[in-house]
Amino acid sequence: MRLPDIKPYLVTRRLIPENQEAPIHFISAAITPEQYFYRRNHFPYPVISEQSFLLSIGGEVKRPLTFHYQDLLRMPSKEMTVVLECSGNNRGHFRPRVYGEQWEGGAISQGVWRGAPLRDLLKLTGLHAASKEIVFEGHDYGKRTDLEGEFMFARSLPLEKALHPDTLIAYALNGKPIPYKQGYPLRLIVPQWYAMASVKWLRSITVIETHFNGPYQDIDYVYYPAKDSDAGKMPVTTIHVNSIIQQPLNWSVLTTGMHQLYGIAWTGTGFITNVEISIDGGERWEQAAIQKYPGNPYSWTFWSYIWAAPKKGEYTIMSRATDSIGFVQPPEARWNRKGYGYNAYSTVHVKVD
Amino acid sequence: MRLPDIKPYLVTRRLIPENQEAPIHFISAAITPEQYFYRRNHFPYPVISEQSFLLSIGGEVKRPLTFHYQDLLRMPSKEMTVVLECSGNNRGHFRPRVYGEQWEGGAISQGVWRGAPLRDLLKLTGLHAASKEIVFEGHDYGKRTDLEGEFMFARSLPLEKALHPDTLIAYALNGKPIPYKQGYPLRLIVPQWYAMASVKWLRSITVIETHFNGPYQDIDYVYYPAKDSDAGKMPVTTIHVNSIIQQPLNWSVLTTGMHQLYGIAWTGTGFITNVEISIDGGERWEQAAIQKYPGNPYSWTFWSYIWAAPKKGEYTIMSRATDSIGFVQPPEARWNRKGYGYNAYSTVHVKVD
Repeated sequence: MRLPDIKPYLVTRRLIPENQEAPIHFISAAITPEQYFYRRNHFPYPVISEQSFLLSIGGEVKRPLTFHYQDLLRMPSKEMTVVLECSGNNRGHFRPRVYGEQWEGGAISQGVWRGAPLRDLLKLTGLHAASKEIVFEGHDYGKRTDLEGEFMFARSLPLEKALHPDTLIAYALNGKPIPYKQGYPLRLIVPQWYAMASVKWLRSITVIETHFNGPYQDIDYVYYPAKDSDAGKMPVTTIHVNSIIQQPLNWSVLTTGMHQLYGIAWTGTGFITNVEISIDGGERWEQAAIQKYPGNPYSWTFWSYIWAAPKKGEYTIMSRATDSIGFVQPPEARWNRKGYGYNAYSTVHVKVD
Repeated sequence: MRLPDIKPYLVTRRLIPENQEAPIHFISAAITPEQYFYRRNHFPYPVISEQSFLLSIGGEVKRPLTFHYQDLLRMPSKEMTVVLECSGNNRGHFRPRVYGEQWEGGAISQGVWRGAPLRDLLKLTGLHAASKEIVFEGHDYGKRTDLEGEFMFARSLPLEKALHPDTLIAYALNGKPIPYKQGYPLRLIVPQWYAMASVKWLRSITVIETHFNGPYQDIDYVYYPAKDSDAGKMPVTTIHVNSIIQQPLNWSVLTTGMHQLYGIAWTGTGFITNVEISIDGGERWEQAAIQKYPGNPYSWTFWSYIWAAPKKGEYTIMSRATDSIGFVQPPEARWNRKGYGYNAYSTVHVKVD
């Protein structure tokens, strides 16, 4: 008899446009398979045409150029394992609640991206001395609830991040052309930043001498610490140090005896140096074993911890990651009105029966 | 160009054993397609063999008999559209939280079941006068966290419910053999009761003169109103009157203007007579339009309500169903330690932007 096929699925947060998260508690592969890669869209999927294979670079450059997909394939390339995390990941865990897609912990995936460094393209176009930001526009566009009209998805990077040798114009994921839903044919990949920066279906790059203020730069993807004013607003940029307990599941019932707790940890500032586990709701902490994914600074780190559940009762298990810059996950995430950058301890309640 | 395939998936609550809920907010078909039918298992899937096609009826009967699957196909049959709802549906919404699978609203599905009425089989075996309950055993078995040893999944029905003409030994779902994960080849179908009563992979039926006290009868599927004692325990039986707002989604952002709110309502006691909607958190209620699924007393009822979102702001939308017996959804579900029978108002928070 054929064994039954039991597998997890993406978790649907919205269908129009498609927003689905990875079943993060049920996948342990280092490289997220395509069918479990989270999908985050502001708009309907764009139509792919011959135009989609062209990438124009213009604005404050010395020699505006248009690259064809084939040109990029012929350039020197880099391959990097990169965590992509939606800045709204875990939005559903903020208290007070915030509006927007109620992501739990699965708006995160890891893949091997290959592409040409953006800086190599910009060497060919040249930059004017007063250049300040670079704007990246995708082929996807549509309406917003708060403004009239239609908008392209467009984001900018400061010059320094754009010129980092690991900021890529990617054309491959996991050794194959980028899947359509992940930005085929060309996607900007910005390691260490939340993934709104990694613009999908990339169509144009424009160098500007001012600050870009499109709505996906200056309205969304901004931390607003106050509920009713814009005081203290700050752009969303690097990924906060973070971890998740993948197993055991929250509110699950376990037998007494040995259990392996495990999960992942990641950061946009340096690399993970430590993951600690508490079994008693944060009173005492012990070190987990950590296993860095080899040879790459932008990948997540696996952690595990063997717990000999001593006796019946209720337990609150927490994980807390530290990175090489010294950032540590906080007990409470910094609340902000649009719900970005959540990184409080991962917490799981279990009952030993 | 082929349009992108965008579809919802089952929501994984646990994989070993498989427990996945329907993406209830994203399906509006009256008959739940097989790939979206929720899956609730206590144990690994049983192996199907020739034995699986035999159904024995014994215990306090006059003539113990074994029926073959083919015998059942030849008997007079009934076809009924039935809501199956896990008694733990919405367990994740209880406050204080309770342990167990954290079902949200999707542990519910509707299908067209065909089978032979159990009472016709029992006419052939006869019953002794002192018969009190009938025990149904499935082929699935395994361990529990709280007791040593292995257990079959077994449940009993009082004689009156077992002899109801609509209690079926089903062999078909939606015009085809029952899918393996839904109990192939034979499943007991008990309309109006929570679905733990509808035993999958049915292997034996035993008439007894006492009360059956297996762990899935007397430990699980019991309402325990107190956290730390068993005082006031009551068996889980009929489905509570209930409704769900499928759209809009909780914590979503809407434009001003017209929106269709819609969902389903169902009950195990009679049929749905009214669904009311509140936009202001339960202060004022208005009637929704309801559309009974034709010709069947055990199916769910669709409801819809057109809302002209008047102005920007935050709104708390609620639905409340009433059935023909007079039961009304309560504002708060009756808390119980194992989290069964949740049926508080369905509540959705939206922001009009």
